[in-house]
Amino acid sequence: MPRDPFDWITGAAAARERAGLVRRLRPRPADDTRLDLASNDYLGLSRHPEVIEGAVTAARRWGAGATGSRLVTGTTGLHAELEAELAAFCGFEAALVFSSGYAANIAAVTALTGHDTLVVSDAGNHASLIDGCRLSRAQTAVTPHADPEAVDKALDAHGGRALVVTDAVFSVDGDAAPLAALAGVAAGHGAALLVDDAHGLGVLGPGGSGTPAAQGVAGGRGVVATVTLSKSLGSQGGAVLGPAAVIEHLVNTARTFIFDTGLAPAAAGAALAALRLLRREPQRAARVREVARTLHEGLTASGLRAIRPDAAVISVPAPLPEQALSWAADCRSAGVSVGCFRPPSVPDGISRVRLTARADLERQDIDFALRTLAATAPRA
Amino acid sequence: MPRDPFDWITGAAAARERAGLVRRLRPRPADDTRLDLASNDYLGLSRHPEVIEGAVTAARRWGAGATGSRLVTGTTGLHAELEAELAAFCGFEAALVFSSGYAANIAAVTALTGHDTLVVSDAGNHASLIDGCRLSRAQTAVTPHADPEAVDKALDAHGGRALVVTDAVFSVDGDAAPLAALAGVAAGHGAALLVDDAHGLGVLGPGGSGTPAAQGVAGGRGVVATVTLSKSLGSQGGAVLGPAAVIEHLVNTARTFIFDTGLAPAAAGAALAALRLLRREPQRAARVREVARTLHEGLTASGLRAIRPDAAVISVPAPLPEQALSWAADCRSAGVSVGCFRPPSVPDGISRVRLTARADLERQDIDFALRTLAATAPRA
Ligand SMILES: Cc1ncc(COP(=O)(O)O)c(C=O)c1O
Ligand SMILES: Cc1ncc(COP(=O)(O)O)c(C=O)c1O
Repeated sequence: MPRDPFDWITGAAAARERAGLVRRLRPRPADDTRLDLASNDYLGLSRHPEVIEGAVTAARRWGAGATGSRLVTGTTGLHAELEAELAAFCGFEAALVFSSGYAANIAAVTALTGHDTLVVSDAGNHASLIDGCRLSRAQTAVTPHADPEAVDKALDAHGGRALVVTDAVFSVDGDAAPLAALAGVAAGHGAALLVDDAHGLGVLGPGGSGTPAAQGVAGGRGVVATVTLSKSLGSQGGAVLGPAAVIEHLVNTARTFIFDTGLAPAAAGAALAALRLLRREPQRAARVREVARTLHEGLTASGLRAIRPDAAVISVPAPLPEQALSWAADCRSAGVSVGCFRPPSVPDGISRVRLTARADLERQDIDFALRTLAATAPRA
Repeated sequence: MPRDPFDWITGAAAARERAGLVRRLRPRPADDTRLDLASNDYLGLSRHPEVIEGAVTAARRWGAGATGSRLVTGTTGLHAELEAELAAFCGFEAALVFSSGYAANIAAVTALTGHDTLVVSDAGNHASLIDGCRLSRAQTAVTPHADPEAVDKALDAHGGRALVVTDAVFSVDGDAAPLAALAGVAAGHGAALLVDDAHGLGVLGPGGSGTPAAQGVAGGRGVVATVTLSKSLGSQGGAVLGPAAVIEHLVNTARTFIFDTGLAPAAAGAALAALRLLRREPQRAARVREVARTLHEGLTASGLRAIRPDAAVISVPAPLPEQALSWAADCRSAGVSVGCFRPPSVPDGISRVRLTARADLERQDIDFALRTLAATAPRA
């Protein structure tokens, strides 16, 4: 009798169990009363009435789905409106919306590279950028984290066409990349710069217009950015921002654009409503940064070694994966949701508890969170 | 002065222009009055009031976005409900929902393979399955289209762990894969079978339960299927269906699951409403097949060489890309939207006009479409 084709999966599951690295889904209830310091809903907009009405109105007007790929029936007037306003808000000439930030990143890396391109990629980059590098036929040089000099050297050694790729705010530790320096190095070599601003949009830059705007590189020649609609904008989807010629090139060549159904109208409508709200209330971006600083100061005051946040993500290393896991579980039991990053989701193998600031947290929420984190912290 | 990093893009655009292969986005208006034979909204559910209310209720109850990745805050009770009902409907033990069918396919191929796996992939497979093969570290053997004997030979030559990958209904020509034969060949070699049922769900099988059910392989040992929520279910998103152990494995290892924001509640709610509607009104699946047959017969009666449809997609080859393009444009001007597939979106390089049947087309719509297609057809 032939073997079970999935025998090996049972073995892999047992190995995960032994290593204490099993992940399980925990469906949350609609009326979750825990304090949320785990989501990426940085501006608290996913439940804002205007954003929800953006989703509702779009579904009623345009239907529940885009009904086809963007080049067939999947581009509505709503998609075009969102693209124009996103580009203008972030300071780029044009934008192209995707069904996810993940798909936008794969598209940007693969469409901006060929077999003769060198991709210079930061060691801390997000999985979607790495998958983009793997899918491109380009040679990839991984440089040490946030190290423009190393990028300079890699470009020197190559000479030909090149693309420098970096997260703007790194998802694990919440530190910002030295974009201005990277843009200078790239420009000096005639190389392009691709910046993933998933965690910067809505948080950094004037009125939350993003990390490229904050560091003066938005709209620069050779600069392309990606964003997600699923974090500060409280919705789903992603976008690539850049020169109009680059956007046209993506329309014509990016596989995750051409062969994917367009973003659902409800998601596009919610993101557009969130964007308009943020333009009207730019102080939301300053507020989330203030909350992040307050959380960091409080953690430090309790003797916890938290990493100073450049944006809304605060990372607190834990000695062992099991400690990170039980710390997060204890917080949850005490009424505070926090994230827990363990191998293989952390590039350096160090487990972390991960907190996210939200613009709509009040002083008493912050105090409660800080008390809970201190009371449940693992003893060294 | 250093060169413009995007010079080469201008050159690529000029080459596309010369080859007559430029693609442009055409945003459609909300009150589009053209007859739609271009979308993948096979059951006409994207604008069904119950499906739209599914989106609206979900956005109001759960918010506009999932707020995080599925393992952090992005799994709601709604996602769990959708997964349970999808798995039951299609005849599999468990299901896992993704933000797109594209992401589900990448996840399934990469998580079910290792560096020692042979992937045997049909030459007509969808771009997302091909990207999955490229991202996996596996060796890939591409077999001629719909050829179980060639699959058998490829598996014979390998001997070790293997995964056979196929579209259930091919997106370009609308033909169904010989799943029963492929499952037999795979089982005989202890290999797994991965079936992408994007175009079969809602169309084939009892009550639209899909191609694996239609061919008696749903829920079989070693069989995994993917579906999209963006075609028959009128929404957005995708899912992997299979044994519970495989789904657990994906939760723990699939990068496009772990590092992607969960599907927006509105999209999950719309898909669930569509699924429940289809269970109550199973005749919708039979109706779309009947419409497809009627369209094919009418095209043939007009002397057009259309490919006989196994599901809802009807492909009509055109001699040249420009002819396919102007045929589709002439249909559009006459009030009928049809798709146009040109290189590089067609594996064999042959351009096509592509029609899709919908369950809600009336006899008079079909007649109008057939008259328009015949009147605008390119002369040989
Ligand atoms: C840095 C970064 N880039 C891209 C993504 C992917 O975006 P999305 O979840 O919208 O697909 C994420 C997280 O999800 C991220 O943290
Ligand atoms: C065969 C096939 N598989 C997968 C997909 C991707 O699904 P989605 O558009 O939901 O990402 C498509 C089309 O979009 C398809 O035609």
